[in-house]
Amino acid sequence: MDGTNRSFIITLTTDFGLKDAFVGVLKGVILSINPHATIVDITHGIPQGDLDAASFAVDQAYTFFPPNTIHVVVVDPGVGTQRRILLVRAKEHYFLAPDNSVLRYIFVRHPEAEVISVTNEKYFLPHTSQTFHGRDIFAPVAAHLSRGVPFHTFGETITDYLKGDIALPQKTENLITGQIVYIDHFGNCISNISKNDFDPEQLVEINIKYFQFERLSHSYAEHQVAEPLVIFSSHDYLEIAVRDGNAAQFLNIKKGEPIEVVLSETS
Amino acid sequence: MDGTNRSFIITLTTDFGLKDAFVGVLKGVILSINPHATIVDITHGIPQGDLDAASFAVDQAYTFFPPNTIHVVVVDPGVGTQRRILLVRAKEHYFLAPDNSVLRYIFVRHPEAEVISVTNEKYFLPHTSQTFHGRDIFAPVAAHLSRGVPFHTFGETITDYLKGDIALPQKTENLITGQIVYIDHFGNCISNISKNDFDPEQLVEINIKYFQFERLSHSYAEHQVAEPLVIFSSHDYLEIAVRDGNAAQFLNIKKGEPIEVVLSETS
Amino acid sequence: MDGTNRSFIITLTTDFGLKDAFVGVLKGVILSINPHATIVDITHGIPQGDLDAASFAVDQAYTFFPPNTIHVVVVDPGVGTQRRILLVRAKEHYFLAPDNSVLRYIFVRHPEAEVISVTNEKYFLPHTSQTFHGRDIFAPVAAHLSRGVPFHTFGETITDYLKGDIALPQKTENLITGQIVYIDHFGNCISNISKNDFDPEQLVEINIKYFQFERLSHSYAEHQVAEPLVIFSSHDYLEIAVRDGNAAQFLNIKKGEPIEVVLSETS
Repeated sequence: MDGTNRSFIITLTTDFGLKDAFVGVLKGVILSINPHATIVDITHGIPQGDLDAASFAVDQAYTFFPPNTIHVVVVDPGVGTQRRILLVRAKEHYFLAPDNSVLRYIFVRHPEAEVISVTNEKYFLPHTSQTFHGRDIFAPVAAHLSRGVPFHTFGETITDYLKGDIALPQKTENLITGQIVYIDHFGNCISNISKNDFDPEQLVEINIKYFQFERLSHSYAEHQVAEPLVIFSSHDYLEIAVRDGNAAQFLNIKKGEPIEVVLSETS
Repeated sequence: MDGTNRSFIITLTTDFGLKDAFVGVLKGVILSINPHATIVDITHGIPQGDLDAASFAVDQAYTFFPPNTIHVVVVDPGVGTQRRILLVRAKEHYFLAPDNSVLRYIFVRHPEAEVISVTNEKYFLPHTSQTFHGRDIFAPVAAHLSRGVPFHTFGETITDYLKGDIALPQKTENLITGQIVYIDHFGNCISNISKNDFDPEQLVEINIKYFQFERLSHSYAEHQVAEPLVIFSSHDYLEIAVRDGNAAQFLNIKKGEPIEVVLSETS
Repeated sequence: MDGTNRSFIITLTTDFGLKDAFVGVLKGVILSINPHATIVDITHGIPQGDLDAASFAVDQAYTFFPPNTIHVVVVDPGVGTQRRILLVRAKEHYFLAPDNSVLRYIFVRHPEAEVISVTNEKYFLPHTSQTFHGRDIFAPVAAHLSRGVPFHTFGETITDYLKGDIALPQKTENLITGQIVYIDHFGNCISNISKNDFDPEQLVEINIKYFQFERLSHSYAEHQVAEPLVIFSSHDYLEIAVRDGNAAQFLNIKKGEPIEVVLSETS
């Protein structure tokens, strides 16, 4: 890292939950190596092994952190196998994650990213278990990186890592077909159709399941309680919501549900 | 803020839950603006849009923080509408919250509080979404305030904000009638009848639902397991509890349940 | 503490849950006394009053923190009674907990530990409630200790504290009989039989309930999805797991379930 622009922030995204000591242990390891690190939890509520949810969480968060923040993602069903561990530098962002496509959004947004296979055991804990590489490898590597150990010290550059896929919407002149890619805590259903995918002036209707919406809302509260609506999410994707309610439950929408946007002829 | 007595603590109270990246994003925004901020979670487990629970949580917590701590409350069902955002200074405490009465306890305890409507977009994120003002407005405003931007810079003083109501107990010479205002994680049922409302020497009985208590306990463990009891809570309000059990479930008590204290004639 | 090797880390392990303001309040009290403290949550998800789970969490975590870290454990069903509060120094680790055996693993691993009964009210909050000593005693005592107040200042040395028991496996030449002592977030079932208890070369079979395993696995992912397996846990104890699944649910294993390891004759 550039010493003049150093960040000591390390973020954590895991499926560890909060009932055990796992997350505390990661922090103990990090602070043992870099007592000045600032550690921020993105979430530890990723469902067990859910790479979709983890990749989405990281994508929602990383641009809001200062340069040189290190984003550690431990959703790692392959722990203990030969799967590799990736250290990634993409613009001013660092990521440390298993080689299982959990960084798929990062690789799409940053095709220029440099990727290292982390192999330098000098930066691991002395005793490496078969089941908790978060503690034994991810945490100490992140902590050493945050202390200024140079990027290329941790292993060799690779290009054959798992990039993974992102479901992109299909577009014709009058129709965009996408899908729900994430359902949040409030039951809001986030699609993969972005504000950039169409001109709202041309909107005829939005269809999902048996529901049809003819306009985009500007706030939840302009609706009656329990009324469904479509709004641009905080990341500018189409979102199905229900005022003061849970859209996923009320409308029985699940991840993967198709959604279509019908547009008028281009003027 | 007074530079000689500056605190860099920002607390967060939200209904965001912990499964998504929302809370991490708030912290990223804050640390991008003030890398030296100390961020403390009060809770992110407020039920969706529950202003009662959020107002209670803030009231339980704020006096235990150092002077100049900034308490950010994002329980904001009106996000995206014209509802205002309030910045409040009450003695040495700062609060940032929607204008929806979620600071009701603060306004009761600090009638002298100064209240600003936050309008200075210079301190917002450049792109403000319709659905996530926590990220786009609350977090950056709190961070700038913690860096020393003067209080009055953020907007104009107002007096017509929503103060909200607090249910107060009714008192006659021999009877106090109150209600359960909060049920905590353990199922303890906290009332709005305070230690200051009566002289324990005069206590005849306490009634709630079909239960009658003739004395105040001094600890949970002086009772048999599963036995109900009344004790002064950690904030000196009457609390219904069950030893090693969940009073709300065992006694089927809900928020709003009436509770009465019968007193003897004044000696 | 030794001023040249001071740590400002305070860890928290409680059964407070995350829906109320309790945890935030502890942090406010600590930061009011020591603004430079680094506070790390081990977990607040200990089931109400579950001393087994709390003792296990602390044991999993403490060795991964820097010297002079102070581990605060507030699982305290006896709050408000005459139960004592213990301050413990064991090698370079500090612990603050009720005298209810929640530090049982520490006392087993560190028979040389120094134990103080915390009685010096100078370091308590001025007003001590009957129900929240976490806030009124544990938090301020930990904060003062982290600021360098000498260990023996907090009270008098005692030896008659509750040490508690740890279930140890029974060993004969060809058979080890242990039990499941913890079930984690993933449903992994951790036993009390350690890697040090036998030579894997001699392993004939491992039996638990109706299930029999003839070998130890090296990773979860070498198995089919939903297949049960036995592996050494991250702390080198035998662990029953199910690939990408929940062993406790799938195999209906509960805490206390017996497990046996059958060994061949010593060669």
